[in-house]
Amino acid sequence: MLTDPLSDEDPSPLAVAAPARALPRARPAPHVAIVGATGAVGVELIACLEARAFPLASLRLFASARSAGRRVPFCGTELVIEELTDDSFEGIDIALFSAGATISRHYAPLAAEAGAVVIDNSSAFRMAPEVPLVVPEVNGAVLAGHGGLNGSGGMIANPNCVAAIMTVALAPLNRVHPIRRIQAATYQAASGGGAAMMEELRAGTAAALAGEDFAPSVLPHPYAFNLFSHNAEVDPRSGYNGEELKVIAETRRILGAPGLPIGITCIRVPVLRAHAIALTLSFDAPVSVTEARALLAAAPGLRVVDDRAANHFPMPSEVSGQDDVFVGRIRTDLGDPTGCSLCLYVVGDQLLKGAALNAVQIAETLVGG
Amino acid sequence: MLTDPLSDEDPSPLAVAAPARALPRARPAPHVAIVGATGAVGVELIACLEARAFPLASLRLFASARSAGRRVPFCGTELVIEELTDDSFEGIDIALFSAGATISRHYAPLAAEAGAVVIDNSSAFRMAPEVPLVVPEVNGAVLAGHGGLNGSGGMIANPNCVAAIMTVALAPLNRVHPIRRIQAATYQAASGGGAAMMEELRAGTAAALAGEDFAPSVLPHPYAFNLFSHNAEVDPRSGYNGEELKVIAETRRILGAPGLPIGITCIRVPVLRAHAIALTLSFDAPVSVTEARALLAAAPGLRVVDDRAANHFPMPSEVSGQDDVFVGRIRTDLGDPTGCSLCLYVVGDQLLKGAALNAVQIAETLVGG
Repeated sequence: MLTDPLSDEDPSPLAVAAPARALPRARPAPHVAIVGATGAVGVELIACLEARAFPLASLRLFASARSAGRRVPFCGTELVIEELTDDSFEGIDIALFSAGATISRHYAPLAAEAGAVVIDNSSAFRMAPEVPLVVPEVNGAVLAGHGGLNGSGGMIANPNCVAAIMTVALAPLNRVHPIRRIQAATYQAASGGGAAMMEELRAGTAAALAGEDFAPSVLPHPYAFNLFSHNAEVDPRSGYNGEELKVIAETRRILGAPGLPIGITCIRVPVLRAHAIALTLSFDAPVSVTEARALLAAAPGLRVVDDRAANHFPMPSEVSGQDDVFVGRIRTDLGDPTGCSLCLYVVGDQLLKGAALNAVQIAETLVGG
Repeated sequence: MLTDPLSDEDPSPLAVAAPARALPRARPAPHVAIVGATGAVGVELIACLEARAFPLASLRLFASARSAGRRVPFCGTELVIEELTDDSFEGIDIALFSAGATISRHYAPLAAEAGAVVIDNSSAFRMAPEVPLVVPEVNGAVLAGHGGLNGSGGMIANPNCVAAIMTVALAPLNRVHPIRRIQAATYQAASGGGAAMMEELRAGTAAALAGEDFAPSVLPHPYAFNLFSHNAEVDPRSGYNGEELKVIAETRRILGAPGLPIGITCIRVPVLRAHAIALTLSFDAPVSVTEARALLAAAPGLRVVDDRAANHFPMPSEVSGQDDVFVGRIRTDLGDPTGCSLCLYVVGDQLLKGAALNAVQIAETLVGG
């Protein structure tokens, strides 16, 4: 058992900072575990907990045996990565999983049985009816019926990154003017494929610039200055890939709009960590750009960047590292002769709102609510 | 006056090679000029003429005074760049312009007055009713009514790169099943912004990988691992940028479909020279994927790459340097509850079918027709 540098007995700067967050009916700070602590999302989970001064009784970091023993800075001290085992979850209140669906399928039920609330970033349980799929700004209300941190465990699913980012921008419009049809094309960053894909983009690009050969190992083709249809398996019947089908199913579930027609093309672009989405939304009647902009500007977690005169719209270079989802290019769709469609262009940090931040926001809701 | 290494008196390897192309009613080989010979498209125009063994009586290369005197290899010999002046077009039969709309507006009428047929790659004359806007595979028939190389001059416009690439894929479907609505999102390469933008992408990316500062000069923001809404000026009324409005207007004109509803979002991605387009096309009735694939596979200038099992679809890395437009991801749009829409994903080399190749194909039609 590790010495816990953040135990109640040894208040850290974090614990001191915690009361600065307004938590109306504060519970005792939880014991938190991160599963997949060395992955691209795991690193951001740790950073989010620190940056947001998440109230912690303790934080334990789990990964594969290969990473066990590695030390990770946290709140002015160091935590040591532990090997994940079946017994890792004793005394844990919240387990943040981000190690892929296979790991989640085995370990998340064990964590829940041990009394932890699992917040799972994988796709393993996202469509399970008993597991809420949550973007707090959009459907955080579904957590009200959840058991919370009462030691009875349970699972909450963190959505696919595109679905999370997209629904933040869809919800404020959908609440007032129900969306009847969505057409989307994505521009997805390497981070969605994990740290290894980000490194392959960097290394492959360096080799391309140097005119050197580079043998890709994560992808079957070059990534440098290249883009490609998303690498998820393609459904032979529909021709949609797994990523596209996830976004369709999860978006419907998060918006509470079963059967909502959604067409989508998911493309991976040579960008490191922010996803962009070109959207066309159809309504029953025309929605003015002025009204749409006002609804989006007033919505939590969204920032409108829509400066036509300066040609300044959301860009990965400005959105990477930001908590908010950015939205711009708000205009009436010239492709809809009825005038009932709007176009938007949405960019969000895949590792933050698309993954780690959203998971931590779910945890904050549990702790604070 | 320069010595012309490709004059009739001195047959070059090119002139020897020329009869290999089947030209049913061959005219005398034309005297050809390239305006903007040092630009990204100009370089490809020269390469296309050489690679396709275009029949030439002579080839003259024009650029700004800054580039005059530079020597360029061509068909085993060298050509010398000349400064463009008002008198450059004497004796020229075909003038291929690719130096921007400002140069075209001044010099293209002078070239036409001097008896040359101008094939203009700029946007200057694309919507002029008397100037045909041509993608040979799509509407090459409009050239039948054109004066041709009879010394009376005239102008032909080469379309916007997205419109040229996209219409090659739209036309075979549109001929059989009229398209009623188009929704497009583009993934546009640096080459569309010229050689300077390509160099800014390379240099900025090298700096980013090295962790060095880089001051962009072509764009007002970083391009390395970044993407951004197309840099063309945004129409303050509609919110569409100039690139999007060009694609809409030119696609309608090339397809002969005035008023066709087209919605489009144009995004510049960190790719060097091939454009991708995610398309949703609506018809009056369902069009099967099988039929669409057959129509596309049989069409000139198109190559179907649509391997769902191998997840192999068109990619810039495989399309760059290719004459054909590639199409894949052919599937029924899940976003259209009527089932009357198809999705396609199209990739074409911006410098080839999007610019130089299409211009040379127009010239071939004039020479051979």
